[in-house]
Amino acid sequence: MFPDSLKRFVDIVSALPGIGPRQATRLAFYLIRHGKTSIADLAEAAARLSGIHTCARCFFPYEMKRGMQAGENLCSICADPKRDQLAIAIVEKETDLLSLEKSKKWRGRYLVLGELGKDGMLDTEQKLRLKSLTGALAKGSGQANEILIGLNPTTLGDIEAGLILEELKPFAKKITRLGRGLPTGGEIEFADEETLGGALENRR
Amino acid sequence: MFPDSLKRFVDIVSALPGIGPRQATRLAFYLIRHGKTSIADLAEAAARLSGIHTCARCFFPYEMKRGMQAGENLCSICADPKRDQLAIAIVEKETDLLSLEKSKKWRGRYLVLGELGKDGMLDTEQKLRLKSLTGALAKGSGQANEILIGLNPTTLGDIEAGLILEELKPFAKKITRLGRGLPTGGEIEFADEETLGGALENRR
Repeated sequence: MFPDSLKRFVDIVSALPGIGPRQATRLAFYLIRHGKTSIADLAEAAARLSGIHTCARCFFPYEMKRGMQAGENLCSICADPKRDQLAIAIVEKETDLLSLEKSKKWRGRYLVLGELGKDGMLDTEQKLRLKSLTGALAKGSGQANEILIGLNPTTLGDIEAGLILEELKPFAKKITRLGRGLPTGGEIEFADEETLGGALENRR
Repeated sequence: MFPDSLKRFVDIVSALPGIGPRQATRLAFYLIRHGKTSIADLAEAAARLSGIHTCARCFFPYEMKRGMQAGENLCSICADPKRDQLAIAIVEKETDLLSLEKSKKWRGRYLVLGELGKDGMLDTEQKLRLKSLTGALAKGSGQANEILIGLNPTTLGDIEAGLILEELKPFAKKITRLGRGLPTGGEIEFADEETLGGALENRR
């Protein structure tokens, strides 16, 4: 009774993170109701994602543009001579990079590490990414001016930050982490003691 | 800095109901990380939705199958001689139809009305769908044996049910609504008085 192609759409879409079968089903019916244009738009937008590559230096996605030479495999931040290529912020997710970019306060570049596992260990891919950074530093100036470990201020983030710190210590003049304190708009009354402790240490 | 095709994907996907720009962005990064196969799967699954048609009788989606004659434009329920074609459940959404089907207690067919507006009025499309039902009944046996108004037991649902009742009264021997009572697993302590009232009236 359920059309095959509808079933397939629901299977594929509900396998995506954060979308359950109910929402996938609602989406399918929505698209069917809204006709061929919205279906074609989605299919085309999804297909075009396959033209996206991953930056060889920071692992953030970028798109090959017309007129780009083959071999120019860097994203716009890593290719930007105005960014300090010797200041590297290590972030977990692509969206974390975007959030830091929005603050307009980081003039270095990034290394996207990939989502942290729940075991507090670095996986093979993450180790490779760190190696690609240290390898490049070793071949170049030897040391970065600053490595900012931009992981979440959670127990897990702290554990992994410790591991990364050990790994990168020889390759940076300075290793920093994001400052802790009260979030803007936050209230002292509701802040936990760790946050308040951070806010006191970072007072200015 | 944000690749164009990524931006386009986020625009298209965040225009879908229940998906915000943040989730759309996460989905895009997820797909890029998972490579060309998952991107192609999604694009193809979306594209295939355009092969889905809407049943001429009940407006539920169905798929043209190989060997189907042109003109066989009914879904499997409406084309099923074992279903009582003179018992019609009027539902708001396709997913409501699926929920009722899962109960295996309705042996009639359906009419999908489309989502209710918040103004308590039937829109043009909904009026047309009701007309297509009454038109077919008038041309056929004149009256349905039963019309079940399967709208949500909400204030809005009740208002619209009243409108539909007026419209359909001449075309059905019996017009019913879904029974009210305690949901399975529900606790009397937490039931509101309307629900308990329904449960008392429908006691058996």
